[in-house]
Amino acid sequence: MIKNSKPPIPVQGFSWMGMNTGIKDKSLDFGVLAADQSCSAAAVFTRNNLPGAPVVVGREHASQGVLQAIVVNSKCANVGLGKRGLEDAKKMCEWTAEALNIEPQQVLPSSTGVIGHPLPMDKIRQGILSIGNYLDNTSDAVEAFAKAIMTTDTHPKWRNACAGPARLLGVAKGAGMIEPNMATMLSFLVTDAEIESTILQPMLKRAVDISFNRISIDTDTSTSDTVVLLANGMAGKVNESDFEQSLIELCQELAKDLVQDGEGVTKLIELTISGASSSDMALQLGKSIINSPLIKTAIHGADPNWGRFVMAVGKVFEHPVRLEELELRFGKKDEIQVVNSKMLEENRVQLDRIQELLARETVEIEVRVGRGDHTETFWGCDLSKGYIDENAFYTT
Amino acid sequence: MIKNSKPPIPVQGFSWMGMNTGIKDKSLDFGVLAADQSCSAAAVFTRNNLPGAPVVVGREHASQGVLQAIVVNSKCANVGLGKRGLEDAKKMCEWTAEALNIEPQQVLPSSTGVIGHPLPMDKIRQGILSIGNYLDNTSDAVEAFAKAIMTTDTHPKWRNACAGPARLLGVAKGAGMIEPNMATMLSFLVTDAEIESTILQPMLKRAVDISFNRISIDTDTSTSDTVVLLANGMAGKVNESDFEQSLIELCQELAKDLVQDGEGVTKLIELTISGASSSDMALQLGKSIINSPLIKTAIHGADPNWGRFVMAVGKVFEHPVRLEELELRFGKKDEIQVVNSKMLEENRVQLDRIQELLARETVEIEVRVGRGDHTETFWGCDLSKGYIDENAFYTT
Repeated sequence: MIKNSKPPIPVQGFSWMGMNTGIKDKSLDFGVLAADQSCSAAAVFTRNNLPGAPVVVGREHASQGVLQAIVVNSKCANVGLGKRGLEDAKKMCEWTAEALNIEPQQVLPSSTGVIGHPLPMDKIRQGILSIGNYLDNTSDAVEAFAKAIMTTDTHPKWRNACAGPARLLGVAKGAGMIEPNMATMLSFLVTDAEIESTILQPMLKRAVDISFNRISIDTDTSTSDTVVLLANGMAGKVNESDFEQSLIELCQELAKDLVQDGEGVTKLIELTISGASSSDMALQLGKSIINSPLIKTAIHGADPNWGRFVMAVGKVFEHPVRLEELELRFGKKDEIQVVNSKMLEENRVQLDRIQELLARETVEIEVRVGRGDHTETFWGCDLSKGYIDENAFYTT
Repeated sequence: MIKNSKPPIPVQGFSWMGMNTGIKDKSLDFGVLAADQSCSAAAVFTRNNLPGAPVVVGREHASQGVLQAIVVNSKCANVGLGKRGLEDAKKMCEWTAEALNIEPQQVLPSSTGVIGHPLPMDKIRQGILSIGNYLDNTSDAVEAFAKAIMTTDTHPKWRNACAGPARLLGVAKGAGMIEPNMATMLSFLVTDAEIESTILQPMLKRAVDISFNRISIDTDTSTSDTVVLLANGMAGKVNESDFEQSLIELCQELAKDLVQDGEGVTKLIELTISGASSSDMALQLGKSIINSPLIKTAIHGADPNWGRFVMAVGKVFEHPVRLEELELRFGKKDEIQVVNSKMLEENRVQLDRIQELLARETVEIEVRVGRGDHTETFWGCDLSKGYIDENAFYTT
């Protein structure tokens, strides 16, 4: 069960901090998350072939299933810098481990922001030397951490959930370059449940697949995407299936938060593909629709342009759909407005009503593509002039 | 050799017309191209699985390799309307054949514009009844035809070329929903060369593959894309390889014209992928870069954000590129500014100079991805607020 609490509810045994070290401006840009003890850990990362140095180092550290701390900065992603980048990511772990008196292998590094600029290590060093002054187990500390990982996000993001005696807290950042593949943006999750990492890892993977892997802002895949889950075991054992359900809901809520706060976004699109004859068919059709610039702009303008859905369904060459079986359903259950080719032929489509439904902040659309029994849900967003503003002059 | 003449130079034996029939507004919306005699014909169409009715009928008529006329309207695409759409496309051919005293199978129908609205057949009928008054072999008639097929294009497009004794003339429209697969937008080509359709068909396919199939405006694939080439043989036999070269150049010039006049476009991007170890690798990397919204917006703002290229190269999962071998080269031969990870590490990249090169109307970029010997060139465009303006309220 999700509780979108404000402020965030801390989880026992985890401390947080966020501060400014002056990497680019005066906003918070450096954060640390530290557990009081070694944790079972699970992590998934971007599938991008040229990942950032922190992803390379993080993959190695997380592979042992044990982590105790996360050190992260925003405003500079430490990507595309070869050996120098790797050395810097390792230094971040070593310095943090020294400050916390733990092993460097138990620290996961993470960086987000501009790609291709070297990390100002003197400033990172300053941040790490301040850990003792800032680290705390309060709502304010969590909020400061959530702010410190933001780039073009307009607000910090966190979600709480519980599962039996255990609590879950997740913090995330997103905003652009979002078309996850096996992972997403940055998302740091903690729990006091007691679960082994061999169970936690496939569980996190499943949760990511139907949450962060079902959203898209702009079809681009970040080089830094990372989702990490730390479990310190302080609340004892939990029912695994209840815990997984809570984890999925938490991830889905965070994923939707990310889309809604995407660059220039004015609308959340919830798209369901139904009637597909395979999961792959539903996935490919869903991605084609949710990523189509022509559909994104039409929804931005609340333009009931059904033809663009026909186009986007038709451009998935591997999975042909018959026009007679293609049906669009706009709106929630009790208000659904249907469009199909038969209704169009007979001039029975209520375009005015569809235009009203498209004008909402959350636009719900179901696309039936046949009589198969595979259904998948996706979350995406409209494409507005705000996206151009955010991205035309990002580094200058 | 291409001659971008203004006005267009007509080719002997072909007549053209363009007029307004009031489908949507007062601009020209109906055109006919008719040959004095049966022509060898070649045609390629969209790969979209839900093509418009004119594509279905046109495929059948063109399959015999003989055509004599083309009837086309803009402002309404006749797509997604099932049986009714097919009947209307066939009627267009029958009525045109009757007016020209030829067989309906020798007429290729074509429609472009909004998807999912029925074609106003009474207005089409009016247009066809006027054929006798308008059809002509003059520059003005060609220009009227070129205007009649426009949708959101800002100007009509044509190109001339010659090959030995023969002439070539091509007319095209594009503007949006452009990510061709086996074909493109609408493009009607005529020549007085004498070439059999069995030679013409594979030749057109090859020309399309390295022209219209190498451009992208917005990743969306139209349901109506059609390229047709009619050869009436009046100039006699030609050297086939010279003719093919002229055809390729003509198609590439038209393709670039389409991109430059894309919706909201302010810049033409000429992208070359070099050093790929296969043609598929070059193609996939090129498409990933030329279609990335983050690269398109960065170039729009002349932002020297090299990191976004790293991201776009890395998101082609099937073809990993080593960061050490990735190199960007901005500008023409004598002015090239290079970026690679080594230069970034050593702080030797001249971002100011790259920013200047990105501020041009035509932006030339070479991306070296390894030491292979496959090279491919692509043409794309920036993403601006104009694209949003054009597409947020298209049907309303």
